[in-house]
Amino acid sequence: MKFLHTSDWHLGRQFHNISLLEDQQAVLAQIITYIQAHPVDALVIAGDIYDRSVPPTAAIEVMSQFIETVCGELSLPVIMIPGNHDGAQRLGFASSQMKASGLHIIANFDDMLKPVVIDSSIGEVAFYGMPYNDPELVRHHTKQPAKDHDQAHQLLSQLIVEQFKPEQKNVLLSHCFVDGAIESDSERPLSIGGSDRVSHEHFRPFDYVALGHLHQPQKKGEEYIRYSGSLMKYSFSEQHQAKGMTLVELDEHGFKSATHVPLTAPHQMRIIEGQLEELIEQGKTDANNHDYILARLTDKHAILDPMEKLRKVYPNILHLEKPGMLIGVDQQMGKARLARGELDMFRDFFLEAKQEPLTADQESAVSDIISQLTRQQEV
Amino acid sequence: MKFLHTSDWHLGRQFHNISLLEDQQAVLAQIITYIQAHPVDALVIAGDIYDRSVPPTAAIEVMSQFIETVCGELSLPVIMIPGNHDGAQRLGFASSQMKASGLHIIANFDDMLKPVVIDSSIGEVAFYGMPYNDPELVRHHTKQPAKDHDQAHQLLSQLIVEQFKPEQKNVLLSHCFVDGAIESDSERPLSIGGSDRVSHEHFRPFDYVALGHLHQPQKKGEEYIRYSGSLMKYSFSEQHQAKGMTLVELDEHGFKSATHVPLTAPHQMRIIEGQLEELIEQGKTDANNHDYILARLTDKHAILDPMEKLRKVYPNILHLEKPGMLIGVDQQMGKARLARGELDMFRDFFLEAKQEPLTADQESAVSDIISQLTRQQEV
Repeated sequence: MKFLHTSDWHLGRQFHNISLLEDQQAVLAQIITYIQAHPVDALVIAGDIYDRSVPPTAAIEVMSQFIETVCGELSLPVIMIPGNHDGAQRLGFASSQMKASGLHIIANFDDMLKPVVIDSSIGEVAFYGMPYNDPELVRHHTKQPAKDHDQAHQLLSQLIVEQFKPEQKNVLLSHCFVDGAIESDSERPLSIGGSDRVSHEHFRPFDYVALGHLHQPQKKGEEYIRYSGSLMKYSFSEQHQAKGMTLVELDEHGFKSATHVPLTAPHQMRIIEGQLEELIEQGKTDANNHDYILARLTDKHAILDPMEKLRKVYPNILHLEKPGMLIGVDQQMGKARLARGELDMFRDFFLEAKQEPLTADQESAVSDIISQLTRQQEV
Repeated sequence: MKFLHTSDWHLGRQFHNISLLEDQQAVLAQIITYIQAHPVDALVIAGDIYDRSVPPTAAIEVMSQFIETVCGELSLPVIMIPGNHDGAQRLGFASSQMKASGLHIIANFDDMLKPVVIDSSIGEVAFYGMPYNDPELVRHHTKQPAKDHDQAHQLLSQLIVEQFKPEQKNVLLSHCFVDGAIESDSERPLSIGGSDRVSHEHFRPFDYVALGHLHQPQKKGEEYIRYSGSLMKYSFSEQHQAKGMTLVELDEHGFKSATHVPLTAPHQMRIIEGQLEELIEQGKTDANNHDYILARLTDKHAILDPMEKLRKVYPNILHLEKPGMLIGVDQQMGKARLARGELDMFRDFFLEAKQEPLTADQESAVSDIISQLTRQQEV
């Protein structure tokens, strides 16, 4: 019995003011192609379907089309839970009316205790979904104490385990931060100060736990307790992370294997570093020059409009850092300290803009102005 | 064969900063009670389910619960179209996945040509839904000219009529402004300058046309082309309108009858008029003193905090008008002209606040100040 585990789609996300929806659509098409070539028994999405509780309508349409293809045309059951980015009530509208078609959105605690049971070659497999929850929500619903995320997840896991039937295998979908797991820059914290961490111990009774929230694929504590990672890269810090889905196999004993199935976004997110001239040279022959680029310039002199120059070879350059221009950050003032003085910088600028150096008179005039401005700032 | 026609629910609407959701919920409960007592073959909602394209989550939950009761527990098919207040794509998410359960949200032009066919005692009845559309949307979709709402609806009606099957009766849901129909204060105009009017002639080929948009129940041109009116009153201008649903009966010849089924919101919206003291007296014995009230005071003298005084007997007073204080509106200045001068008004105020009249000295001082202020304004 096989199913695909994915999470953290964040449909509709913007990255440096660029919409990622076309990239996301391309990756969803890869999922469909994979399913057509490699039949599975279900697709699970462990939360953060959308990037916001009120997603843009274009993202809703992409999701609706995906669902229509997978549930409708391919007749594959899809099981999902809302994550901390989703609006549970919005996502869960009329979810009971979708079940007959194989679309299962488990968006509240009542549905959490009613598993989606899939009959397979190894018998019945029950998929339980724990919609994203925080301690307050759990206290309110269960009327039991749950001081932090760990206790909340322990409590909900117990409630689910009580539903287990001896003849069924049990899969859990949960959107949470398992203690000790590896973070990326693109996840929104669930709470401040580490109280969002959940022990993987609570999840031991399951045959497989499909986790969402963290964007790097990883297992936690056991081979069968896993994050699939996000659909694609959502920050430059993820440039070296493998992205994809997890193909899970169960047999009559329970968990058998988990295999990473790569998914590749049309544009990768990556960081390039070097002097401007080097980067421009390299860009001319870079086969992937359409990637989303963060450039770190090591040049030590001022450069006029480097973004525009780089955009000619890297059309999707999104951000620029100039570490070569800095010698550090003034901690007290919270300001970056430049490696070169204002007069030097102006000399560079003038030379580049006018193609000739400052005359002695000009240099003296600029120097006076800078002195005046500096004095005014200090007052 | 019988079905219920409703429209313009506007779930989640606010009225003078009061949420109407509890009233709406109470009226939805009346619909459910009616259906339980008087079995019908379908419930249709001709648009404006919600008041906004992004409705509050509480409104989504009320709707989801209603659907679960009607489609789920009562197994009654529900057919709806988005209106101009709804977000079609948002409302239409995963609509294909809901059909099997009897929930039919017809939110795009492709679905418009695929009727919901209900098999009944008189044979098959095809329900076509025309999602709310404006001319630009229709031009874009059909690639045909449609300069105004009338031409757009003519074109879409033709497309639908071409789908007719001889053995079926045909019902249309449409959200538009049929020419000559009666408006209320609470409808949002579809376009400016009257170009939103649609002739009822385009709708003649149908056996029944379930219209939405206008809040007063009414027929247009034919007995079988009707507005059901809104779920409840949404402006004081609707105080004398009957609110409810339309029970439609078809037989083997087509349209048979349309009957108004009243629905009554817990709080009515109404206008009371008179002098403050009279209204307060009357409020003390008013059995419906919890209604949403607009009070029109005919008193000609200034009154300190009349809203607070009225609220003691009419706790849900929402708005106050003081026609007695005005002798008209200065057209040129766009300002209301008061019936009494500033000095008279101050005398009233002082008497009420201090329980004694102004002395001659005080009156002279106030008079001086008013003269000064008036001169300053004139400069």
